[in-house]
Amino acid sequence: MSLDEIFALAYRVLSGAGLSRAHAEAVAHTIMVSERDACASHGLHRLPGCVMTIRSGKLSLDAEPKVEDVTPSLVRVDAGYGYSRLAFDRGTPSLVEKARRCGIAAMAINDCFHFSALWPEVEALTDLGLAALAMTPSHAWVAPAGGTRGLLGTNPIAFGWPRSGRHPYVFDFATSAMARSELARRKSEGTPIVEGIGLGPDGTPTTDASAALDGAMLTFGGHKGSALSTMIELMAGPLIGDRTSLASMEFDEDLKLAPCHGELVMAFDPAVMAGGRVDQGTAWAEALFSGFAEQGARLPSERRYAARARTIAEGVSVPRPLHERLLALES
Amino acid sequence: MSLDEIFALAYRVLSGAGLSRAHAEAVAHTIMVSERDACASHGLHRLPGCVMTIRSGKLSLDAEPKVEDVTPSLVRVDAGYGYSRLAFDRGTPSLVEKARRCGIAAMAINDCFHFSALWPEVEALTDLGLAALAMTPSHAWVAPAGGTRGLLGTNPIAFGWPRSGRHPYVFDFATSAMARSELARRKSEGTPIVEGIGLGPDGTPTTDASAALDGAMLTFGGHKGSALSTMIELMAGPLIGDRTSLASMEFDEDLKLAPCHGELVMAFDPAVMAGGRVDQGTAWAEALFSGFAEQGARLPSERRYAARARTIAEGVSVPRPLHERLLALES
Repeated sequence: MSLDEIFALAYRVLSGAGLSRAHAEAVAHTIMVSERDACASHGLHRLPGCVMTIRSGKLSLDAEPKVEDVTPSLVRVDAGYGYSRLAFDRGTPSLVEKARRCGIAAMAINDCFHFSALWPEVEALTDLGLAALAMTPSHAWVAPAGGTRGLLGTNPIAFGWPRSGRHPYVFDFATSAMARSELARRKSEGTPIVEGIGLGPDGTPTTDASAALDGAMLTFGGHKGSALSTMIELMAGPLIGDRTSLASMEFDEDLKLAPCHGELVMAFDPAVMAGGRVDQGTAWAEALFSGFAEQGARLPSERRYAARARTIAEGVSVPRPLHERLLALES
Repeated sequence: MSLDEIFALAYRVLSGAGLSRAHAEAVAHTIMVSERDACASHGLHRLPGCVMTIRSGKLSLDAEPKVEDVTPSLVRVDAGYGYSRLAFDRGTPSLVEKARRCGIAAMAINDCFHFSALWPEVEALTDLGLAALAMTPSHAWVAPAGGTRGLLGTNPIAFGWPRSGRHPYVFDFATSAMARSELARRKSEGTPIVEGIGLGPDGTPTTDASAALDGAMLTFGGHKGSALSTMIELMAGPLIGDRTSLASMEFDEDLKLAPCHGELVMAFDPAVMAGGRVDQGTAWAEALFSGFAEQGARLPSERRYAARARTIAEGVSVPRPLHERLLALES
């Protein structure tokens, strides 16, 4: 399927389920760019879950995000219990203007259902010459270091750095040791996981994906990853007056919908923050990136950019069973 | 030794080596609070290294930090090639005022020699009711994921969250898999390291601490830790017009002094960023912390606070050989 066809299919499924035009376009765009960049975790196979969330009655199908200019460096977007991506799009012009004026600025998105990879948001800012840092909680599936049961979310964090004439440096990773979707895949295939990924319902280490889904996931990187995940809970939650992963899960009332919480996006303008030394800073940054290449280490976004070049030219292979399932959802 | 005696000893060594009164007091304070909180990595045993840096001729012994009010949410402190902590102290009032007015604000410290744990700085901000995030590069001792030699620094990151009537939530960790000082200790004791800590000079995994010191360290958490470390390079380096760890090492000219680069400190006022929901946010944050305690998981700062209660009452045991070495440095 071409990328246009993927967008159109996603849009039809979402709007057919009842989502307003603006929200359906925003979510379909995320799905399209995820397929484009070979990030299946946010691609077409997430549509059935979106439809479940759309039909739950908890998600606002047509909330128009309210943008509030709070301070010279803070914009707040009340998503009104709609999907997050439209809120991001509506608040971005103000965030960009504030970052360019102040050097550092933040966008606090409140009360959004989260279905949006963070890297497309970060890239929207690097495309404008800004550095960006975005984070969200999720649901309380992940045990803290030394713990036995879910408390933290899978808590993604994404960062982007603009590079003149090149793809930006971008990473976007979950702070859980494994993506929850990958854990679900292991369960359905019956393949084991290594130790360090999850705990069983009794709070002890397990190599059984199913037991880890019923028990708790673990963070990457031991106590350091656990601390970073806790920071994301606090910064993208209580700091902006919004839910932790624990509070999001309570709000969910065991309906297993998309998490509902906030999102924190920070934008930084090197031209302001580096003062008179922006060219020197850029040279130091590029020397760092050259250092990766010289020793054969890949930058985290290279795989996505290679996929992008390929899929724009050749389109995307969509498994037939998934395609048929989505066509059925349309009707 | 009492904490007062530790401060006095550190101050005499530093000022005796030629450091100005203001800088000697600032560095001695860091050494005292590190001993107080049982963080030996920034305690008395670092004084000989400080003296080497002081006598190198590269460090300014008496630079008065220049504070520049750049934008409503950005303050810059030119440390003038002095130690970093005095620059932090001089810029903090402006950072605090900006965070309280704007919700989010940043302090960019430029051209500082770094000897300062980050958690005392973060705590200085949580004491005022602000959340804080601080980071710095170091020297290019750490290989990126998939790489073979040093490129990234040990790149510490520290975060603090204020809690009413309680110690703040604070973490401060190196993004290397092991602290470099611990690696040096292993070398001197001849004890091995597990795989995943370092690479030998040939770029292959090693369990020999000495080989890892001559080769490269690795980050914690695989490619995610490597990405986080790269973010710290970019945000606390080129973003603020300052050196990466690679550039810091070049500046060092193999003298093995303290790294010379920048530092980025961000401060956040929940009262502004949470808007009308600051009380609700606080309740969600405290429920998260309760969740740690209920499952027997420790918060990252608990060990330090326990040490603090003990050393304030009982003082600190200083090994006699170290004490004698420091007394010799005094004269």
